Amino acid sequence: MSIRVTVWGENIHEQRKASVQKLYPRGMHTTIAEGIAEYLGDAVRVKTATFDEPEHGLTQAVLGETDVLTWWGHAAHNEVDDQVVQRVHERVLLGMGLIVLHSGHASKLFRRLMGTTCALRWREAGERELVWNVAPGHPITRGLPEVFAIPEQEMYGEYFDIPQPDELVFISSFAGGEVFRSGCVFRRGQGRIFYFSPGHEDHPVYHQAEVRRVIANAVAWAAPLADLEPYPTFKVTPHSPTGWFTQAKPD
Amino acid sequence: MSIRVTVWGENIHEQRKASVQKLYPRGMHTTIAEGIAEYLGDAVRVKTATFDEPEHGLTQAVLGETDVLTWWGHAAHNEVDDQVVQRVHERVLLGMGLIVLHSGHASKLFRRLMGTTCALRWREAGERELVWNVAPGHPITRGLPEVFAIPEQEMYGEYFDIPQPDELVFISSFAGGEVFRSGCVFRRGQGRIFYFSPGHEDHPVYHQAEVRRVIANAVAWAAPLADLEPYPTFKVTPHSPTGWFTQAKPD
Amino acid sequence: MSIRVTVWGENIHEQRKASVQKLYPRGMHTTIAEGIAEYLGDAVRVKTATFDEPEHGLTQAVLGETDVLTWWGHAAHNEVDDQVVQRVHERVLLGMGLIVLHSGHASKLFRRLMGTTCALRWREAGERELVWNVAPGHPITRGLPEVFAIPEQEMYGEYFDIPQPDELVFISSFAGGEVFRSGCVFRRGQGRIFYFSPGHEDHPVYHQAEVRRVIANAVAWAAPLADLEPYPTFKVTPHSPTGWFTQAKPD
Amino acid sequence: MSIRVTVWGENIHEQRKASVQKLYPRGMHTTIAEGIAEYLGDAVRVKTATFDEPEHGLTQAVLGETDVLTWWGHAAHNEVDDQVVQRVHERVLLGMGLIVLHSGHASKLFRRLMGTTCALRWREAGERELVWNVAPGHPITRGLPEVFAIPEQEMYGEYFDIPQPDELVFISSFAGGEVFRSGCVFRRGQGRIFYFSPGHEDHPVYHQAEVRRVIANAVAWAAPLADLEPYPTFKVTPHSPTGWFTQAKPD
Repeated sequence: MSIRVTVWGENIHEQRKASVQKLYPRGMHTTIAEGIAEYLGDAVRVKTATFDEPEHGLTQAVLGETDVLTWWGHAAHNEVDDQVVQRVHERVLLGMGLIVLHSGHASKLFRRLMGTTCALRWREAGERELVWNVAPGHPITRGLPEVFAIPEQEMYGEYFDIPQPDELVFISSFAGGEVFRSGCVFRRGQGRIFYFSPGHEDHPVYHQAEVRRVIANAVAWAAPLADLEPYPTFKVTPHSPTGWFTQAKPD
Repeated sequence: MSIRVTVWGENIHEQRKASVQKLYPRGMHTTIAEGIAEYLGDAVRVKTATFDEPEHGLTQAVLGETDVLTWWGHAAHNEVDDQVVQRVHERVLLGMGLIVLHSGHASKLFRRLMGTTCALRWREAGERELVWNVAPGHPITRGLPEVFAIPEQEMYGEYFDIPQPDELVFISSFAGGEVFRSGCVFRRGQGRIFYFSPGHEDHPVYHQAEVRRVIANAVAWAAPLADLEPYPTFKVTPHSPTGWFTQAKPD
Repeated sequence: MSIRVTVWGENIHEQRKASVQKLYPRGMHTTIAEGIAEYLGDAVRVKTATFDEPEHGLTQAVLGETDVLTWWGHAAHNEVDDQVVQRVHERVLLGMGLIVLHSGHASKLFRRLMGTTCALRWREAGERELVWNVAPGHPITRGLPEVFAIPEQEMYGEYFDIPQPDELVFISSFAGGEVFRSGCVFRRGQGRIFYFSPGHEDHPVYHQAEVRRVIANAVAWAAPLADLEPYPTFKVTPHSPTGWFTQAKPD
Repeated sequence: MSIRVTVWGENIHEQRKASVQKLYPRGMHTTIAEGIAEYLGDAVRVKTATFDEPEHGLTQAVLGETDVLTWWGHAAHNEVDDQVVQRVHERVLLGMGLIVLHSGHASKLFRRLMGTTCALRWREAGERELVWNVAPGHPITRGLPEVFAIPEQEMYGEYFDIPQPDELVFISSFAGGEVFRSGCVFRRGQGRIFYFSPGHEDHPVYHQAEVRRVIANAVAWAAPLADLEPYPTFKVTPHSPTGWFTQAKPD
């Protein structure tokens, strides 16, 4: 059974800025979706959704058929509907995988999941980023070298205000000397979350092979178990009227 | 310089239910405050604040003079003002210690900080809880035996929907066979958070020596460094126009 | 390509004690191997090896063809050859999965990997163990209920002297009131390690469906990536004569 | 009561190489000891011990009077006596703080505590290291800026083969583009361990204010509780003949 992936893209910079449009003529979401399909092939069915669709394209029906969601947003973070954010948040806790990309660090969704500001240091100077693998053997690093360079990137630097990641996968350095925890795993509820910072709209980052490979690996890793059921304490706080002692099993 | 502690109590059950009033005639918050002072003496200055005060007693001025806040709520979780929750949340990220007690697991504040439902399994049967120390040498377990019993407690059981704690300090078992991660450390921003589950309003838990000792230890542990300053990325996402290379230091 | 599993059994209690022989006539290792095959079928090729074979059956050749090793030992921990321990240790760091069972907690191998004493509290009283799932959605808990009972087990209790697990999957309670971190994930080098405490020789634990399922799940989870290569810093501390700046890639 | 600190130095490079002797005329250990005293004053009593003393100066008596040990070694890692390593290892598990410096990453002691190779990438080019604070509010970062530069340092780079740190405090970048987890907290048994990578013998790193401050902060943080007792499962695996149910307290 293939993994059902929804690539969510804000798709605003691509409409407004000619240079971005040139790099991503059909939107960054399309390029990201193609990168996932390139590496995972028949193992995935990839759709896209964007900010300007009704309910941002993330209706209950769409989410119900999504195993892994990827999220790229920037210009319209504050305009994303709170109900949609709530809906996606719940679905992550119930087991949907989530891949948050680049400026998605400041989205309502990611900040709600983290409980922190998710603020960071930044600079737009199109400088070289080196992405170092600090978790060899991790499924997300499959087929990747120990380090790869992104020739031109926006700088994202520490301090990055997140909870300590459950697993730290990549650390980047920038030509200016900054460092950044650029690949971070978080587990929340039954869901797996991966934050990956490379990917600015002004640079062709999502066309680069290593970046596409990381995202594809992360999608495969974040997919929930096929037979996953909601955990018992999710919807309501369950009352166990009697102890395990007097029961065949707890209710 | 002494640690400035604010003990926040919802103080509703104590008003409404005679049996609770008998156990805690001046409110649970008063008993908790006395327990902290009993163990920390001159090292602390303890005040209390309650739900029914203006802004729940947690004005910007009060928080500005609070190094560690303890939180007990239950009946009025949903009536706690969102602005106050936001204010406390920010203050925790900037370094105020936070001790969340018992049913505070379901407070708006704790759920915002965790990013999960914080749901759990429960049963009111006044049964024996055994609290086992799984972090010997941790400051929060100072002076405590390897296990202590609470004769009568509400059962809180797994699955407890929280992020994996940064440090797991206590695990409890109940007469009914359930287990619970009853003492959990989380670090968020510059703040230290400790969740401690013992403490139901229907039982004299906050009069028990070991429980008072744990809370006092946690207060001492959670107090911020005296010279703490907001970290640079907190209020705004800082722009670093040039790299470290060309600067004496980053702005 | 199927996962190559080697089930290592000390196979001493089974030879010496009639009651153990009755429960495990062909050795516990055979029962454990059958349990893995029962759930994973063609996805695995399972072999066994025992203490009394030359080099304990764990020659370089055998390890070279092992993706996941399971380890049960007790009576002969100190007689296990140091060179074999060293060899298995290295192989784990290079990516072989390792499942350590029950009394294997005190093996030379596990203590070397942990860096701690791995001591614990114990009692042989054939009492009921409840195994609670505290990581719903984790591949190791696939298809398992939120709690299952083992009718008769040796008690293993806290304090269990291990590093904080990278993921805590199960917590057990015992009829006597003790608790235990009974399912623990550790990542070391490129290898994945799972410690699972149920499984005393005096009880038919490895015949129980839930226990077999956990072990089979853990084998599937611990299998290394098919294309795994030794990470660059393993064998020697690599000298990088020039920085990344002046190279196409670091040596 | 002041913290009793023993600064252990291999003191070999200082004897053999004129340039090192010039930087550290009384040995690096003396400079490190002075740095600790400079920041902690009367709160510490600092002694030194070196490789060439009987039992490397780390007799049972010396360790019995040591609250925190710092460790710098390089040329003689393999000549350090296994019994001394065993003795220090045990003492750490029982609560002695341990600060491992620079090339101490490859010492027998650190590798035993970690259970991994602790290998890393390196280059001696006297290049600039930037040390970034990724744990603002942590006691080890007290009084330190968000980043500081070491003008000339040996490069230590990822992949660094350690277990995931319990807390990651510093990440460094180097002029060559490499990154390194340069400040790492580990808890083992009752002991607290801090690894801090800056400090090559060919550079005046231990004379630099920020480096001295970090080490002094770490000493204060790693000191055990004054009233710490050995945890019950340390020396032997304790037999609990009866459950908690039938006892006043477990034996």
